[in-house]
This record gives sequence, structure tokens and C-alpha cells, in this order.
Amino acid sequence: MKDTLTDANFPRTADLRVYHLGLRPGEVANRIVTVGSPSRARTVASHFDTTPKPFELASERGFLTITGRYKGVPVSVVSIGMGHPNVDFFVREVRECLSGDMLIIRLGSCGGLIDVPVGSVVVPTSSVAVERNLDFDFASDVGSTEKPYRISKPVSADTELHSQVHKSLAAVKPQHWTAPIIVGTTNASADSFYSSQGRQTSFPDQNEYLIDHLQASVPQLATFEMETFWLYHLAACWSGRKGKLDKTDAPPLATGPVQPTTSDPPTAHAVSNPLAGHDTVIRAAAAQMVFAARASRDFITPEQVSVLEEWTAKGVLDALVETDIPTTRMHAEEGSVWAL
Amino acid sequence: MKDTLTDANFPRTADLRVYHLGLRPGEVANRIVTVGSPSRARTVASHFDTTPKPFELASERGFLTITGRYKGVPVSVVSIGMGHPNVDFFVREVRECLSGDMLIIRLGSCGGLIDVPVGSVVVPTSSVAVERNLDFDFASDVGSTEKPYRISKPVSADTELHSQVHKSLAAVKPQHWTAPIIVGTTNASADSFYSSQGRQTSFPDQNEYLIDHLQASVPQLATFEMETFWLYHLAACWSGRKGKLDKTDAPPLATGPVQPTTSDPPTAHAVSNPLAGHDTVIRAAAAQMVFAARASRDFITPEQVSVLEEWTAKGVLDALVETDIPTTRMHAEEGSVWAL
Repeated sequence: MKDTLTDANFPRTADLRVYHLGLRPGEVANRIVTVGSPSRARTVASHFDTTPKPFELASERGFLTITGRYKGVPVSVVSIGMGHPNVDFFVREVRECLSGDMLIIRLGSCGGLIDVPVGSVVVPTSSVAVERNLDFDFASDVGSTEKPYRISKPVSADTELHSQVHKSLAAVKPQHWTAPIIVGTTNASADSFYSSQGRQTSFPDQNEYLIDHLQASVPQLATFEMETFWLYHLAACWSGRKGKLDKTDAPPLATGPVQPTTSDPPTAHAVSNPLAGHDTVIRAAAAQMVFAARASRDFITPEQVSVLEEWTAKGVLDALVETDIPTTRMHAEEGSVWAL
Repeated sequence: MKDTLTDANFPRTADLRVYHLGLRPGEVANRIVTVGSPSRARTVASHFDTTPKPFELASERGFLTITGRYKGVPVSVVSIGMGHPNVDFFVREVRECLSGDMLIIRLGSCGGLIDVPVGSVVVPTSSVAVERNLDFDFASDVGSTEKPYRISKPVSADTELHSQVHKSLAAVKPQHWTAPIIVGTTNASADSFYSSQGRQTSFPDQNEYLIDHLQASVPQLATFEMETFWLYHLAACWSGRKGKLDKTDAPPLATGPVQPTTSDPPTAHAVSNPLAGHDTVIRAAAAQMVFAARASRDFITPEQVSVLEEWTAKGVLDALVETDIPTTRMHAEEGSVWAL
């Protein structure tokens, strides 16, 4: 830890840097690609404009943010590692650094549960969470009445952003790339790469029938990974902020009682407000690259990954800049790292 | 991705490297300290013997392993980032690289819920998980019959290792360090640094009364963090392996049907077997440094962190080497990075 932080409720440095991502307002843009590894972040950022020179911040906690412009539009890529808790750090800490709307596209790898080759790209319409039931007695499994895994209700991607991701990916897909782009499917985000994705290891995970059960109970299930559900979930939850900030004098981090509001069914597009008004949205979608074909047990090669990441990075950046954000819901350029 | 992997069920390279940690057998020792950040891993490794020169591997997925000897005994420190899914990657992938017992001590930061100053060190006897109920309607909260958070049953640390951690920390604590070492408490591991730890942000988390509820329902609750529960849980689950490997000819990654077995109540000390016999254990304990005092809202300073990490690192390493592992349950020295 290098910097002095204050306030155990929401730790920040004196210059407003958030604790785990290390960012401050003006260092992250309204349009964001999120990935799992720094190397993939660099592939995405390799498409950024050369002017202004992209800003980079690697936090002590393993997050890497690169912010610049793509086709003249401010964009960021944030590498967050793996799993729901890291998505939670990312969305919440960026939200507190940013005025206006957030458009977020996850570009990640996944396991494919449908009969498509490795190298296919799936754009999931919705996502469910698959969680290990931590009260289940995995070690003995004697007379348990609980189920070993929990499957959540689905949450949807933002409809417009989801369509744009598909369209933009299709426009940049190289002719020689024969694996398809798939839409209209459901993703499952698991809390383990192993047990909650039905992989058989040397732990007693009681998961021999998990994939069969999921396929029977989740319509259109196509992919397994570990992040998309939480992204869609937090985007959908954001509408609650409307209630919180009905007090117009509330400071950005105010607590205040929550006012019940009516709301639409959860989708990853909900209206609310962070630092600059009461009508901002968080919109989320995802592009998932099939690295592991679970039925055939095929795994993608490093050479295929290089080509695949290159064109999908371009596709998701195109989708971001082709999706409109009203000028009044953009973070101020003044004082930002993307100022020209 | 640099290396070619095979088998979508348990991906490995041809030379047996696991996918996310990048390790192969002989690169990780039976005694392990696990931490959240590379800088803390380096502080721990700074105490290692100079001979043999410590081995280091930083994986593309953000894990850093340093293996060497401490007071002549093979030890590793593994930096894993934050959250339960990263603990899951760590324990499962190391388990598949290691013969014999695993002794794991988590050295991490935490929020303190009891009235102790920042810089205190808590050695938790047990841990519960606090999970966001993903089916709860956080955005509207109208007429919901569900609860917004789930609290799991507690899982215990390994009794002997837990006592040794306390003893070894007390032996190295500097006289000038006035903050106490606390034992006999329960930890809560949350799936969010924010919502599931009762922090108030701009999202509608319905968590205003979460801390009060936890304090009323979890006896001896003292700390919040995001990893210890999953570590204790997997260590306790490991006994299930006994059932799996009753077939003595089963290969290390065999699936096979699980045989029901009777078992003790879950503790982070369970008997089973990975690569070399049917009687190995995974034993887990934790030392948690109080960085945030939730009642006073105090946050630790970088200067305090430096001093605190230095002596706690020494304390947990002492606890590891002072805890016995039978010679027959040690990974072979031949071919390992700790061979003399």
C-alpha cells in the first residue's frame, strides 16, 4: 500500500483515488471494454488512436486501466482478473469515478456447452449465476436435503448494446475465420472454474450431473464463464439509485434511506444517476470467445487466440463507439486524460 | 495465452502446467502462505533462505508464486488477488501439482467489526460466507419475500495450525506494536467489498442493517474480508477425496462415482489423498491484519502496513515450519525447485 486512504466505509486517497482500481475521476471513460488479463487489455488498447497518448494505470491490486480514444471517441479498457468479486470491484469503483452513463462490454473467454467449434464467439442475451451451496455437506453427502448448487434467475443484457455487439463483430470477422458468431443464448457465470462448471477434479464436488441439470433447466444455455452475470446484475440493480438520490442534495456517496420504487424486470440497462444528474444508465453486454469445447474436450491454440482476440477487440470497440450517449450524460472532457 | 493446453475438463500444458496459476509439480511446496497482492508476496519471500535461490513464477492470469526454503524447510508464497473464486483457482490447481499434505495460512487484510485499533491481527477460529442473494430484487425491493443476503454455516480452521499461528505471531510481535493479537473469533468472507460488507455506496444494496444482523446472528464475529471462508471450506471438503479414491487404481484426475462416507463436522483439516497415497490432509488457518476499523472509520497508514506485514510474514512462516508433516506425506524433493 503506497497511498494514505481515509474512511473505512468507502476508502479513497486525498486526490479521490479509489482503493483497489487506483483510479480517480477523469481517468476512466464512459465507454468501457472489460477483460480478464493485462495481455488482452493491451490487445484491445492496440486499436486506440495514437493521440492523445493512452493513459495507463496498473493498480497494486492487479487491475489495469488503459484510457484513450478510438475513432476519436473516449474509451477505456479495464483488466479485472476473474470471478464475480472482481467484477464487483470494477463496476462499483468505476461508477464512483464517473459522471453520466456507463456502457460496458465484457470481452472474455468461455467454455462452450453447445456443439460449436473452439474459436466461436457467443453474444449472450442473458445470464444466470451458478453458485456452490456452501451449506451443503460435500465431504459426506449423507442424507442431505439441500442441493449442492444454486442457479439464479436470468438477467438480460442491454438490448440495444447486445444487438450492436453482434452487428459490429459480424462486420469485422475475417473471411478465413470459419467458426461462427452465435446470438440468442444464455450464459452461466460460475463461482468456480471447476466445481460449479461441472469439471471433475480430485475434490468431492457432487457435480457429476450438474451440466445435465443446467441444460435441462436453463433454456438456450450455451456458455460457462465467471463474470457476465454479475456485470448484467449490477447494471440492472443501478435503477435503485433513482430512489437513493431522490434527495437532490444527497452527496455522491450518501447513504440515506432507500425509497421503494417500481421497476421493470431486471435488465442490464437501468436508469439512475451517479455524480451528474438523476437519469444516467449502466448498459452492459458481452462477447464470449469459446476457448474450451466441453463436449469434445477441445481447447483453443495460442495461435487461434491471437487472431480471435485481434478482431473481437476491434468489434467490441466499434460497438461501443457506435452506441449513442447523450452529450449531457458524458463525463466532462476538461481535466480528463482523454482531453485533446 | 502462450502455451498449448489440452483437455477442456482440466486444462494443462504438455509439461503438466495448470491453466491459471501456471505451475507444474515440483514448483510449489507443501507449506504455503497465501496473500492478495504481489507486493505482500515479496515481503513474505524476503524472509526466505538465500539458498537455493527462490523460484518465481508470475502467471498470465495474475497469480504469483515464489518457492524456496525458510529455516531450511521448503515453503511457497502464492499471491492470488481477491475473492472466493481466486481462492478456488489457487487451492484446486495447487492440489493437482502437489503430493502429500497441504498446510495453508492466509495472510490478508480485513475490516475490523470489534473495537480494536487498526494494526490489530485477528486469528479467526472459524468463518462464515456472506453472499448477495442474486434472486433478490435490489432495484425495487417491493413486496420481496426473499432476504437480500445469505449467511452460511461456519467452517473451522485446523485447530493445531490455528494455535500455532497465534503462538508464532505472539513470539515475533515487536514490543513497540501496541495493537493486539486476537483469537477465538469468527470471520465473515463476503462476495463484495461493498454490498455484502454493509458499505454504503451509490448502488441500492439493501444493506443498511446487514452489519447489525450479522452481529446479532454470528457469535464472536470480528472481521470482514473475502477469502478465508472458501479456504477453510475447501480444506474441509477434501475428506470427500477419500471416497473418490477408494478405487486404488484411480488416476489423479479420475472422475468415478462418489462413494458416500461418514465424516466429522467440517473443519479445515480433512483426510484424503492427491497424488501419493490415501491419507493426506489439507490444513488451513489465517492471520488477518485489521486495515479498516469499521466503527471508527479509521484506515491504516502505508507506514503502519510496512511494519505490520514484516512481522506477520515472519510469524506465519514460523507457524508453517513449526507444524509437522510426516516425511511420507511430503512432495518429493527430487526434481523440485527447492532441491539442494
